[in-house]
Amino acid sequence: MDRLRVGIVGASGYSGAVATRLVVAHPRLALTFATSDRVAGSSLGVELGALLPQDVRFVPNASAIEHAEACDAVILATTAEVSLRLAPAFAEKGKQVIDLSGAFRLDASSYPRWYGFTHDAPGWLDGAHYGLPELFGAPPRTAIVANPGCYPTAALLALAPLLRERLVLPASIVVDAKSGVSGAGRQSGDAYSFMEVDDDVRAYKILEHQHTPEIVRGLSRFADRTATDSVEVTFTAHLLPVKRGLLATCYARPRSGTTSSHVVECLAQAYRGARFVRVVPPAEVMLKRVVGTNLAQVGATANQDVVVAIGAIDNLLKGAAGQALQNLNRMNGWDEDLGLGHLERVAP
Amino acid sequence: MDRLRVGIVGASGYSGAVATRLVVAHPRLALTFATSDRVAGSSLGVELGALLPQDVRFVPNASAIEHAEACDAVILATTAEVSLRLAPAFAEKGKQVIDLSGAFRLDASSYPRWYGFTHDAPGWLDGAHYGLPELFGAPPRTAIVANPGCYPTAALLALAPLLRERLVLPASIVVDAKSGVSGAGRQSGDAYSFMEVDDDVRAYKILEHQHTPEIVRGLSRFADRTATDSVEVTFTAHLLPVKRGLLATCYARPRSGTTSSHVVECLAQAYRGARFVRVVPPAEVMLKRVVGTNLAQVGATANQDVVVAIGAIDNLLKGAAGQALQNLNRMNGWDEDLGLGHLERVAP
Amino acid sequence: MDRLRVGIVGASGYSGAVATRLVVAHPRLALTFATSDRVAGSSLGVELGALLPQDVRFVPNASAIEHAEACDAVILATTAEVSLRLAPAFAEKGKQVIDLSGAFRLDASSYPRWYGFTHDAPGWLDGAHYGLPELFGAPPRTAIVANPGCYPTAALLALAPLLRERLVLPASIVVDAKSGVSGAGRQSGDAYSFMEVDDDVRAYKILEHQHTPEIVRGLSRFADRTATDSVEVTFTAHLLPVKRGLLATCYARPRSGTTSSHVVECLAQAYRGARFVRVVPPAEVMLKRVVGTNLAQVGATANQDVVVAIGAIDNLLKGAAGQALQNLNRMNGWDEDLGLGHLERVAP
Amino acid sequence: MDRLRVGIVGASGYSGAVATRLVVAHPRLALTFATSDRVAGSSLGVELGALLPQDVRFVPNASAIEHAEACDAVILATTAEVSLRLAPAFAEKGKQVIDLSGAFRLDASSYPRWYGFTHDAPGWLDGAHYGLPELFGAPPRTAIVANPGCYPTAALLALAPLLRERLVLPASIVVDAKSGVSGAGRQSGDAYSFMEVDDDVRAYKILEHQHTPEIVRGLSRFADRTATDSVEVTFTAHLLPVKRGLLATCYARPRSGTTSSHVVECLAQAYRGARFVRVVPPAEVMLKRVVGTNLAQVGATANQDVVVAIGAIDNLLKGAAGQALQNLNRMNGWDEDLGLGHLERVAP
Repeated sequence: MDRLRVGIVGASGYSGAVATRLVVAHPRLALTFATSDRVAGSSLGVELGALLPQDVRFVPNASAIEHAEACDAVILATTAEVSLRLAPAFAEKGKQVIDLSGAFRLDASSYPRWYGFTHDAPGWLDGAHYGLPELFGAPPRTAIVANPGCYPTAALLALAPLLRERLVLPASIVVDAKSGVSGAGRQSGDAYSFMEVDDDVRAYKILEHQHTPEIVRGLSRFADRTATDSVEVTFTAHLLPVKRGLLATCYARPRSGTTSSHVVECLAQAYRGARFVRVVPPAEVMLKRVVGTNLAQVGATANQDVVVAIGAIDNLLKGAAGQALQNLNRMNGWDEDLGLGHLERVAP
Repeated sequence: MDRLRVGIVGASGYSGAVATRLVVAHPRLALTFATSDRVAGSSLGVELGALLPQDVRFVPNASAIEHAEACDAVILATTAEVSLRLAPAFAEKGKQVIDLSGAFRLDASSYPRWYGFTHDAPGWLDGAHYGLPELFGAPPRTAIVANPGCYPTAALLALAPLLRERLVLPASIVVDAKSGVSGAGRQSGDAYSFMEVDDDVRAYKILEHQHTPEIVRGLSRFADRTATDSVEVTFTAHLLPVKRGLLATCYARPRSGTTSSHVVECLAQAYRGARFVRVVPPAEVMLKRVVGTNLAQVGATANQDVVVAIGAIDNLLKGAAGQALQNLNRMNGWDEDLGLGHLERVAP
Repeated sequence: MDRLRVGIVGASGYSGAVATRLVVAHPRLALTFATSDRVAGSSLGVELGALLPQDVRFVPNASAIEHAEACDAVILATTAEVSLRLAPAFAEKGKQVIDLSGAFRLDASSYPRWYGFTHDAPGWLDGAHYGLPELFGAPPRTAIVANPGCYPTAALLALAPLLRERLVLPASIVVDAKSGVSGAGRQSGDAYSFMEVDDDVRAYKILEHQHTPEIVRGLSRFADRTATDSVEVTFTAHLLPVKRGLLATCYARPRSGTTSSHVVECLAQAYRGARFVRVVPPAEVMLKRVVGTNLAQVGATANQDVVVAIGAIDNLLKGAAGQALQNLNRMNGWDEDLGLGHLERVAP
Repeated sequence: MDRLRVGIVGASGYSGAVATRLVVAHPRLALTFATSDRVAGSSLGVELGALLPQDVRFVPNASAIEHAEACDAVILATTAEVSLRLAPAFAEKGKQVIDLSGAFRLDASSYPRWYGFTHDAPGWLDGAHYGLPELFGAPPRTAIVANPGCYPTAALLALAPLLRERLVLPASIVVDAKSGVSGAGRQSGDAYSFMEVDDDVRAYKILEHQHTPEIVRGLSRFADRTATDSVEVTFTAHLLPVKRGLLATCYARPRSGTTSSHVVECLAQAYRGARFVRVVPPAEVMLKRVVGTNLAQVGATANQDVVVAIGAIDNLLKGAAGQALQNLNRMNGWDEDLGLGHLERVAP
C-alpha cells in the first residue's frame, strides 16, 4: 500500500517540527522533503530528535516548490505571507495543502487590517476549507485546508455547540485565553528569554490579536441567522510561563431559560463519539491533561447571568500540527486518529 | 519614640510570614507575639528567614488572646472562622485590628452562602472599614479593618475609577483572574504538589469563589446609584505555575461615547500621586513588575464594544500583608510607605 | 498471536502509571490487572489518561497475588518491602517478574544498612538479573529482573565502559546527580509542594542514598579484578525544579595515558548499535533531549587530572518503566524497542 | 554627612541593575551616573523598577570616564575587556573601584588561556584585592577590588576553611556547581530562551570554565604551603531552570582522621560572627533560603572517603552586586551590612 508523500515547509519551527515527527511516524505517510532556512543542510535526526532519519536533510524554504512533483501533499508551517504564495502554487499542481498559517482563514476584506496585506488569491480563499473537523467535518480533497489557529480551536470547540443550540447570545462574548510560550513560534530575543518569561504572566496584542476575526467568523457559522444580534467577541491572549498548552476561558450571556445542565448536556451531545474532544467538568479542564496529545478538553457551567465554557488543547498538536494530521487523515478517508492515537499526555 | 506593639496570628502561613517580616523591619512597629500551631515553639529566625530574631518563638494560636494586653495592634492572618471570633475580641480591648480574612468584608446576609457560616458579630461587621486605601482612604482607628482579598484588590483598582467616572456599565462585568500558588495559602496534599501544579493552568471554584460578592460590593460603592442596572460580576480564578503574583483581566461594557483615551486618562487621574499604584499601558501590566513589592499596576484600553482593564499585584504584599501594613501606617498617621518603600521587585 | 498477559502492582504511582500506559500500547502485551490502593475502584482511563481503557478498574494492592494465574508477567512498581514479598511469590508461580524497587539489586548483606530490612529471600536475590540491557544483556526468563534504579542507570551507562576499558581508576569516583521531582515518587506533604520545590535546588540523603551501593556493585563488575583498588563512589542526589529527567555528572581519575579522545571513542564503541543510548559531546547531554523517551544520552571528556562523563535519562522511562519494558522485550525475544520506539521527546 | 558618590558602568545588565538598586537605597551612597548602551537615554525608573528615580537617565558606556570627576567610587559591571581598561583609568584618578568582571582576579599568566587576552595592567593586577570579605578581610582603599565570581564565592566559602584547617587534601577537589540563568548575564538568542531553558539542565564549558583558575588561586592561599600536593580542582558549571541562585556541591578527600564533626565544627568556627554566612546541615543548603539576600549558606559532612561541602548564594547578590556593596562598606569603614541588611529572601 503506497504511502502518501508529504513535504513540510518550515519544518524546524515548533509546529513544523511536531508535524515532521508526526509525518515520519505515520503509517500511511512518507516524508518527501522538509524545509528550513535556519538549519538548512543539517539532518532531521540531529535537529528534531532521535527518532527522525539522520540521513534526511533540511532544504532551504525557497526550494519548496521545486519539490512539489515529489509530493502528494504539503504542510505549510510558515508565515501567512509565505503561505499566501505557496498554498495556491501547490494546490494548482493538484497537491493536497494543509496551511497552518492564517492566510486562508478569513474573508478577503479582513486581511489588510488583521494581517497587514491584501489577499491576492481570493479564489483559493473562497474555496478554502476551515479545518476544525469536529465542527466542520472532513476537508474536500481539492480545497486548501486552512488549519485553524490555536486560540480559535479552543474557543470554537468550547462555544460553537452552545451557540448552535441557542443556549447563549452571540453578543458580548469574552474569550480570555492563556497560552504557553511555544504559541509564539520560535523566537529569539529578550522578550521570550527565560529571564523575562518565567514567573511572569501578561496579556499581549490586546484588542488587536489576529485570531479575533477568526473566532468571530467561526462562531458566526453557528449563530442564529435570523437573530438581530451578530457575533461579537472580545479576545485577549496571555503569555504563560509554560512551554506548551493553551486554556481558553469563555464567557457568554445565556439565553433566557438556559441552565447549567443545558450547557453540560449540549457539549456532551455535540462531542459524543468525537475521538479528540473530551467533555469534563469545567474545573477539570487543564493543560496537563491535554499537553502531549491531540485531545481537546471542554467543559461548561452557567448561572442566570453567564455561561462559562472552558477549552484546553496542546497548542502545537490539536492547535496546529496534530490537527493538520487529523485533517489529512480525514481528507484521505483514513481513520481520524491514524498516527495520532499513540500520543499520550506528558504528565505522569 | 515608642513603637506600636503588634501581634500576629497565623504568622507562619504565607501571608502571615510576610506580615511578620514587614513588622520586624518596620521603623515604628515592634513585634510582640506571633502565633502558629504548625511551628509553635520554634524560632522566627529558623522558620521565616535570617533577618528575623532567633530568640523569639511562635506561640500556639489558642494563646493569641492571652497576649492582647501586650500589644496595641493585631494582624489576623488566619481563617474567616477564627477571625470572626478574634477580631471583635481584640477590638473590644481597644486594639487596632487588621483582619486578612474575609470575615468582615461582606454584608451579613452574604456569609451563609459564600463563607458557610452565619455572622454573629453584625455590629462589628457594620462598622468595619474595607481597607483598600487608594479607593477608601485611611481607616478609622476604632474600626476593624477588613483587609481586602487579593483578587478584589486587583479588580477594584482596575475597575472602580472607570465605574465612578461612568465610563463603563455596571452590568456584565467579567473578571478573569490568574494567581500564583501562594494565593491558596500553605497547603499540603497532592493538589498543590510541584508535579500537579507545574506546567499546568486551570480554573477553580468557577462561579462559586467567595471573592465574587466582595468585588460586587466594592464596585457597587462606585456605581451610579440612580442607574437601573446594578453591578453584576462574573469572576473566575485560575491557578498559575508561579509562586507569587496575580493578574486580573477585567472586561466591562463601555458607556456610549467612551473611548480608549477616556479610560487611560481616568486611571491616570484616579491614581495621580498614589504611592502604590502605577498606571501603565495594559500590555505592560505584568507579574514581574510587581512581585516583591507593594505596588499595583493597572492599565486599560477600549474599543466601542468593550473596555479591558488589567490589574497586577503581588498577592502576598499589596494583596495581603503589604496592604495590611499600608493600612496600619495610615491608621496611625504615618507615611503610607513606611516599612514598605524599600521593597524592590524580584525580577532582575 | 497471543499477547503476553501482564499485571502491574502500584499502577497509579508515577513509574507505575507510565508502565501501565506502555503495556496498554504495546503490540505484544495485554494488561491483566493493575493495582493501586489510592485509586482502587476507579478506572484506568479516568486516572491515567484518555488512551487507557475507561472500563478497566484498579484493584487493591493486597489482591495482586490473587490475580497471579491471570498473568504471564508482573511489573512491580512498589516499595522494596512489598517487592521482597511479592516478587518471589510471583516467580514461584513461574511468572516473569520485573521489579522496579531495590529489593533485588544488592548483596544480601547490604540490605540492613541501606534499606533497613534483612533480606529474607536470598536465594531469589542470588539468582536475580540486574536489568540494564546495554551493560548486562537480556534477562533470563526464570530470574527475577531487578530493574535498575534511575541514578544507577545514568551513572553506569556513563562510567562502566570507561572502567571496563581501564581508562579510569576505580577509586575516588564522584557521581553528582540531579533529578526531577517525579524521582521521589508520588508524594504529598509540604516538602514536594510547588511552593517548596519551584525555584529551588538542594542535595538530599547526602552520603546516605541507597543508590550508592547499587552504583558500586554495578561498576565493580566492570573493574579490573586484579587491581588493588576497589570501586569507591561518592554519590550525591539533588532535587531539581523539573518534573522529569535526571542528569548524572560523573568524575573519575584517569589512568595514566588516558586522553579525551580515548574516552570519547570508548563510549562510542561501547554503544555502537545500541538502540537506546546516544553518545554526544558532554555539553550536549541534557534533559530535554531525553525526557519523554527511553533514550539515554552519554558523553565524556578528559584532561590529565580528571575524566568527566555525563549521562541523562528520563527517570520514569529509561530510569524505570521504559527500561522495564525493554527488559520484558528482550526476555521474550522481541525487538528491544517494541512498544518503546514511538516515544518522542517532549521538547519541541 | 556627605554621601559617597558612586557611578555604575553596565547598569542595565542583571548584576548592574541589582547594584544600581542597592546603591540608590543605600544610606551612605549617592548614585552619580549609570551607563548602559542598551537603554541609554531611558530613565532608571522605567528600566529598573519603580523605586528608582524616573528623572535619572542611563548614559552610554563610552561616556563613563567623562563622569569620573563626579564620583568617588565606581562599580564596573561589564566585561573583563572593558574593565581591564576602565578600572585602572578610574583608579589612577583616585577613585575606589569595585570590578565585577574577572579582569583583576587571576595571575597575569592565566589571562591568555582563560580570558583570551594578554593582561596589560600587571601593576594594578598585582595590587588588586580579591574581595571575598569573610576570607580576605576588608579591601584597602587604594587597590582595585576584584569582586569574586559567583561560582568561586560559593566554592571558596564552603571549602577554604576546611583546607586552612588541614581537614581535606588539596588534590582531587571536585566542584560541581549549578546556577540560575541570570548567571549568564543578559543574553538574547535561542540558547537562553524559555523554550530552551525551562525543564532542562545541562553542563557547559566543561573543563574550560574561567572560574576554574579563580577557585584554584583562592584555595591555594589556604592550602598548606609545605605540602607536596598543590591545589587541583575540577570545576563543572550547570545551567538550571531558575532565575537566580547558585549551589556548589564540593567534594574533597579527607585527611586521615578527619570526621564529620570536624568539618561541621570547622565551618561553624570559621564563620562565627560572620554577618553574611550561615552554617547549616548540608541538606538544608538550598537556593530558596538565600535568593533575594546577600547571605551564603554553607554546610558539610564527611565519611572516611570524602568530605562533601555545599555552598549556596544568590548569584546576583552575594555572587556579584551584594558582595560589591559589602566590599564598599568595609572599604569605607561602615557597617558591613549597611544597605544590605534589609534584603529578605524571596521565598514565602
